[in-house]
Amino acid sequence: MNAPKTMKRVLMGPGPSDVDPGVLEALSRPTIGHLDPAFLEILNEIRELLQYTFLTQNEMTLAVSGTGSAGMETCVVNLIERGDPMLVCINGVFGKRMTDVAERCGAEVSTIEIDWGKAFAPEQIAQALHKQPAKVVGIVHAETSTGVCQPLEEISRIVHDHGALLLVDAVTSLGGMKVDVDGWKIDACYSGTQKCLSCPPGLAPVTFSEAAMDVIENRKTRVQSWYLDMSMIRRYWGSERLYHHTAPINMNYALLESLRIIKEEGLESRWGRHVANHKILKAGLSAMGIRYLPEPGYELPMLNAVSIPDGVDDAAVRKQLLNEFNIEIGGGLGAFKGKAWRIGLMGSACTLSNVMLALAAIEKSLSDQGVKLKPGAGIAAATKQACG
Amino acid sequence: MNAPKTMKRVLMGPGPSDVDPGVLEALSRPTIGHLDPAFLEILNEIRELLQYTFLTQNEMTLAVSGTGSAGMETCVVNLIERGDPMLVCINGVFGKRMTDVAERCGAEVSTIEIDWGKAFAPEQIAQALHKQPAKVVGIVHAETSTGVCQPLEEISRIVHDHGALLLVDAVTSLGGMKVDVDGWKIDACYSGTQKCLSCPPGLAPVTFSEAAMDVIENRKTRVQSWYLDMSMIRRYWGSERLYHHTAPINMNYALLESLRIIKEEGLESRWGRHVANHKILKAGLSAMGIRYLPEPGYELPMLNAVSIPDGVDDAAVRKQLLNEFNIEIGGGLGAFKGKAWRIGLMGSACTLSNVMLALAAIEKSLSDQGVKLKPGAGIAAATKQACG
Repeated sequence: MNAPKTMKRVLMGPGPSDVDPGVLEALSRPTIGHLDPAFLEILNEIRELLQYTFLTQNEMTLAVSGTGSAGMETCVVNLIERGDPMLVCINGVFGKRMTDVAERCGAEVSTIEIDWGKAFAPEQIAQALHKQPAKVVGIVHAETSTGVCQPLEEISRIVHDHGALLLVDAVTSLGGMKVDVDGWKIDACYSGTQKCLSCPPGLAPVTFSEAAMDVIENRKTRVQSWYLDMSMIRRYWGSERLYHHTAPINMNYALLESLRIIKEEGLESRWGRHVANHKILKAGLSAMGIRYLPEPGYELPMLNAVSIPDGVDDAAVRKQLLNEFNIEIGGGLGAFKGKAWRIGLMGSACTLSNVMLALAAIEKSLSDQGVKLKPGAGIAAATKQACG
Repeated sequence: MNAPKTMKRVLMGPGPSDVDPGVLEALSRPTIGHLDPAFLEILNEIRELLQYTFLTQNEMTLAVSGTGSAGMETCVVNLIERGDPMLVCINGVFGKRMTDVAERCGAEVSTIEIDWGKAFAPEQIAQALHKQPAKVVGIVHAETSTGVCQPLEEISRIVHDHGALLLVDAVTSLGGMKVDVDGWKIDACYSGTQKCLSCPPGLAPVTFSEAAMDVIENRKTRVQSWYLDMSMIRRYWGSERLYHHTAPINMNYALLESLRIIKEEGLESRWGRHVANHKILKAGLSAMGIRYLPEPGYELPMLNAVSIPDGVDDAAVRKQLLNEFNIEIGGGLGAFKGKAWRIGLMGSACTLSNVMLALAAIEKSLSDQGVKLKPGAGIAAATKQACG
């Protein structure tokens, strides 16, 4: 058996996204040691650029040696001790996942659940905390399963008024839209490298506020995960440089390069690019009669969750896009399985070319499926939007 | 601040080891999706080649999305439920680490501890199990902190006679010496990519026997780590291909390439190469009056733990080797801090050239430190050994 050596796709799913050639080049640089002074400089620069990207001064800002889900687990297991009350807000797969993670580490979890496709109103969080206080409130900023953007500022105020810590999933949002850790007073935030940072999957950027670090430093019990224990990992990423585990060297090269690219583009420009291309895609899809699933006004720019038109074979379309156009888009997860497509416009993959290509490919594929479309309507509407 | 772009070292420490250019090239191939059929073929081939390398037919053989320590934690948290008795054998840092990991997941841990540098005798395990039965016995095959090789066959018989499962740390041994999972009836075994597989750090190959999988499938409680839960991960690596977390795509490309290189060389030749170069290095170091720390007969070929000569400045020598020769060797860990050097001969770094280079560099550095050596004695003895 011999797996193919190289395969080039256009990654317009829920992640991973297309990786810049410069990042791939960085990934392939010679491996050096995890205690090599040259590597430690790389870690310092990663921290500095993650602080820039997360909009934070938090000293405890670093990349966990696992994917985004490891970032989620890192935040939960470090903040929670057995029996601690935690409130998790569920409006998709990743809120559910956070509940599962929290239960496994012994949290007394309470949840509020709303319909998929909707965002939480601040008063819903206030009511839940009034009924049942919590040490930590977990919420997803960009729900990758539904394409919903969750506003956080007002919720953060409520969470802190109730004396809780705010834990935010920014896996899909970081690098593609504003994630203002300090401005919004987020206490713990995690992301993944393979979404809007456009780095391969394998690391999870995380950041902890001073209040969160106080909680971690004053735990009565050890963190249940040795691998993800921040009180030890901080001694490697900090000035002590004490060996904990061997950092994924080359993945850190790649992350650094992807963060340098982000800094060079500038956060505001990058966010603007994501919004602009999202609007063009949305204009095109809407003209083809394809409906967005999130409630209006809460659509994520980088993850376009749309309803699969009636009578269309989900798997057949995605297969055709992959085989005929080399385009990957995502199917639905959980409650949206078979009902949604998730079209990503993340990081390097968020380009006008990709938007136009995807619209053309989807039109071709839907036509093959017998859907009656006005020929070229999607591209026409997208072009109109793009020309302003 | 700008970290240097590229740095080339000769990696002769306790890992990471030098990575073959072909593996670095594989690492830099375009990222594709974790559910892309082309990527799933790569996972299949990785499993097949890991089975070859672990000498096992275990279906549950795969790469965990974290470093070797995540592999350790994966094995422990999946096999142990709160209150389960576990015996851990400690003769270095990694046995201690396993104890910590096991305690954190609620195991009733008992330990046997022997002097660093020594290997366990089978009767020590028998006595411990007689005194205190265990569900799982954890032991380190190749103790990276002491350079000791732990024979396992007889211990495995004893562990199974007592109705326990055998959990083995093969982080440093896999790919550099025989790790006979099926022959030695190991129930759970983990490794890391950055030692004798000569792939960058970031993945942890693991394998579970049917008996171990039975235990996992019949747990009464959920695995405490969501990220490392084998009962879910098996549904992604198995035929269901159910999304769990986004696999580190490019790291898996690299692992596949490194495993292909191992298959091409052949396990027996590879083990032979490690032994041969170890003997040459040992001849050279011994001629320079440098003493091995493990008890004679138990020295690991790929990790040469030696005593730092009296009066020599540990840090100064390692710094000189790094700055003057670009050679990384390791310092001591834990009880051996400041007392030991750990010279790795792992995978691609295990070459006659590196042995000779290291001997020459160490002679130069020791001479600079004022150690009186017979000039060229190390190289002479090594050459004699190499010429057979």
